[in-house]
Amino acid sequence: MSSSEAAYLDHAATTPLLPAVLAAMAGQLGRVGNASSLHASGRAARRVAEQSRERLAEALGARPSEVLFTGGGTESDNLAVKGLFWARRDADPRRRRIVVSPAEHHAVLDSVEWLAAHDGAEVTWLPVEPTGRVTPRALRAALGTGEDVALASVMWANNEIGTVSDLAALAGVAHAVGVPLHTDAVQAVGQVPVDFAASGVDALTMTAHKLGGPMGAGVLLLRRDVACTPLLHGGGQERDVRSGTLDVAAIVGLQVATTTAVADREDRADRLAALRDRLVAGVVAQVPDVQLNGAPLDDLLDGTVEGGPGRLPGNAHLSFPGAEGDALLMLLDARGVECSTGSACSAGVARPSHVLLATGADPDRARSSLRFSLGHTSTDADVDALLAVIGPVVERARRAGMGRR
Amino acid sequence: MSSSEAAYLDHAATTPLLPAVLAAMAGQLGRVGNASSLHASGRAARRVAEQSRERLAEALGARPSEVLFTGGGTESDNLAVKGLFWARRDADPRRRRIVVSPAEHHAVLDSVEWLAAHDGAEVTWLPVEPTGRVTPRALRAALGTGEDVALASVMWANNEIGTVSDLAALAGVAHAVGVPLHTDAVQAVGQVPVDFAASGVDALTMTAHKLGGPMGAGVLLLRRDVACTPLLHGGGQERDVRSGTLDVAAIVGLQVATTTAVADREDRADRLAALRDRLVAGVVAQVPDVQLNGAPLDDLLDGTVEGGPGRLPGNAHLSFPGAEGDALLMLLDARGVECSTGSACSAGVARPSHVLLATGADPDRARSSLRFSLGHTSTDADVDALLAVIGPVVERARRAGMGRR
Repeated sequence: MSSSEAAYLDHAATTPLLPAVLAAMAGQLGRVGNASSLHASGRAARRVAEQSRERLAEALGARPSEVLFTGGGTESDNLAVKGLFWARRDADPRRRRIVVSPAEHHAVLDSVEWLAAHDGAEVTWLPVEPTGRVTPRALRAALGTGEDVALASVMWANNEIGTVSDLAALAGVAHAVGVPLHTDAVQAVGQVPVDFAASGVDALTMTAHKLGGPMGAGVLLLRRDVACTPLLHGGGQERDVRSGTLDVAAIVGLQVATTTAVADREDRADRLAALRDRLVAGVVAQVPDVQLNGAPLDDLLDGTVEGGPGRLPGNAHLSFPGAEGDALLMLLDARGVECSTGSACSAGVARPSHVLLATGADPDRARSSLRFSLGHTSTDADVDALLAVIGPVVERARRAGMGRR
Repeated sequence: MSSSEAAYLDHAATTPLLPAVLAAMAGQLGRVGNASSLHASGRAARRVAEQSRERLAEALGARPSEVLFTGGGTESDNLAVKGLFWARRDADPRRRRIVVSPAEHHAVLDSVEWLAAHDGAEVTWLPVEPTGRVTPRALRAALGTGEDVALASVMWANNEIGTVSDLAALAGVAHAVGVPLHTDAVQAVGQVPVDFAASGVDALTMTAHKLGGPMGAGVLLLRRDVACTPLLHGGGQERDVRSGTLDVAAIVGLQVATTTAVADREDRADRLAALRDRLVAGVVAQVPDVQLNGAPLDDLLDGTVEGGPGRLPGNAHLSFPGAEGDALLMLLDARGVECSTGSACSAGVARPSHVLLATGADPDRARSSLRFSLGHTSTDADVDALLAVIGPVVERARRAGMGRR
C-alpha cells in the first residue's frame, strides 16, 4: 500500500510524484531567471531547459528540436489537432476532413467537434475493434485517397481500457496517402515502448503527471517538417509554435520523471502486470460474472512495436453486471480503496463511458464498469485491500441498483 | 543584494519565489490526487484548489466563480482575446473589430494579428500618449457606436515602461457602448491596487511568477455574464472554458504569492519607489543626458484608482543616447548587474521596442533603452552595484556604437 492510508488504484488519473522529481523541482524553484532573458540568470535557466529537452528527446527517440514544451496533455492534444488542421487546411482548402477514433480522450474529441462546429471540419469516425484497438485496415479505408484529409489522430494507449494500438503500422498507412498522424501517448509513455522516430508518427502528446512528474507540464513531439499553427501566440518560444515563459522547474520535473519511467519500464511493467493479473483473478473468484473490458490480459501486438503488450500492464477495466459504476466507486472509497469509473464525470453527472460504447458495449455494461490502474508505488497490499472488500461491495451495489429500478 | 551573486534588476521578467510559496508547493506536490477524481484523494485536491480560488478572489476583488486557472499570462491573454472575439462574432457576425493599444504585450498583439489574418478580425489601433497611457477619450473615439466591435483590450500596467492606465475609466467608456474590455494586469497585480469588481473590466489576465509564485500558473478573471469560447477543449474544467487537469500545487503557489503580494503591496511600493528614485537619480548624476521613458516618477492618476500611481513603483526605463541597449545589457551582465532591454528578443535579434515606438519615440531612442525593475528582494546594494558601473559601461557602449557606424 502506498504511504497514504488509502489503497490508491487510480494511477492512470495521476500517480505520486517521484522523490527525485520533487528534489529537482525544489532546486530549480529556488533559482530566479526567465529562460528568455539574456543575462546570466536567464541563460542559466535556458541551459537547464535545453538540457532537459535533450534528455527527454533521447528517452523518447526524438530529436531535441522536435520537443515542444506545453502546459499538459490537454494543451498538447488541442495544439496538435487544431494546429495541424489549420495549417493543412490553410495550405489547401480541400483538406477539411479529420479521421479520428471515437475512443479518443475528450481533449482530442472535443477539439475535433469544435473544429467541425466552428471551422468547417468534417469528421470521419474510425471503427474500433471490440478490444478498443484501431486497425491499419480501418484507417486505410477511412483515409481513402487522403487528398481531402487534414490529419488523423489515434491514441497510442487508451486511458480507460488500456488498449494499445500499433502506431507504427497506422503511421505507415497514413503516410502512404500523405496524411500526418497525431497520437495521444499520455498513457503509453513509460508503460510500453515508445520511440517517436521509429513509430513514424508526426505529432505525439505526452504529459508529466502520469509518470511521477508534476501536473501542468506536457510535451508535444512534432516533426520538423510538419506545419502546425500555434494555439498560443506571443513571445515566440518553442519554435514559434507555443509561446509563453518556459516553466523551467516543471520542465526539469517532467524530464526526471520521464527518463526514470522509461529506464525502469520493463521491470515495472513485469511487476505491475503480475499484480494486475492477481487483482483480476481475485475479483473473478469473488464475482464470477465480472467482465474484463479491452484486450485480453496477455494480449501482445504482432511484434511491430518490439513485442510491446497490446494492453497496458497496470490496467484492469471491469464491468460488474447489475451494479452502477458510481455506486461501486463510492462504496470502495468509503472502504479506503480509490479507483475510477473510467468515464468523464467532471460535472458529477454519470454518463456511460464513450470508450466502451465505441467498442460496441451496451450502455448497461458501460455504466457498470470500474477502472483499476496500478503504478510505481503499487504493492500487493493495495490489491489485498481491494480483494478484502470487493465481494460485499458488489453485492451491496447490486441491491441498491435493484432497489432503484 | 539578493542571495545570488548578481544584482538582479529584472523583476518584471520574473521575480524570486517566496519561501512560503515553495513550502506550500512542496507540501501539495507530495500529495497524490487529481482534482477531477471522485474518491477521497481527488476530493482533497479539489478542496485545496477551491480554497485557493476563494482566497485569490478575495485578494483581487472578484467572486470565486470568476477565477479561471490557466497555464500563465500568455494563455490567459490568448484565451481572453480569441475567446471573446469568437463568442461575440459568432453571436453577431457584424462584430469583427478589435480595439487594442499597440503597446500591448505580444501575447495580446500576436493573438489579435492572428485573428486578423486567420479569422476575419479588423483591428483598430488605439493612439497612445507619449507616457504610454491610453486615455478614455481615445478609447471612446475608437469604439464609435460599438456595434461592430468584438472586444477592446488595454493593459493595466505596461511591462516595459511601467505606465499605468485608468482601467475603471476605460471600462466605463467600453460599457457605455456595450463592448467588453479585457486587461492584461500581469504587471499591475501586487504593484498597484487592482480590484476586479470595482474596475468594471470584463476579463483580467494575471500570472504567478511576477509575484513570487511559480511559472506556468496564471488566472483569467472572467465575469459570469461574459461569453468566452474555450481555447483548450477536453474534460470541461473551469466552467468549461479551460479544460485540463488542475495543477493544484501551482495553484496553491499562485494563491500564496498573490495574497502575500497584495497584502504587502503598500509597504513594498513605498520602499521600491524610493529605491527606484535613488537608482534614477544616481544614473542621471553619471549620465546627464539619460532619458526617462514612460510616465514621470511621481506621476499619479487622478484619484479614480484610489490614488494608485500612474507608474509602477519598481520600474525605471531609461534611454542612453548613442548606446545600443543590447551592448549595455551585456556589459552590465559581465559586471554582475542583470537587467533587460525591454524588447522582445527571444530570437536573439535586436529590434527596437514596439512599446517605445507606440509612444512616438524614434527608433534610435527605442534601441538605446534599458529596463531596470525592482522587486521584493531588491536592496540598496542592488542599486549600488548598478551605480558603481553604469558610467563606464555607457561610455564603453557609446564608443562601440560609434565604431560600428
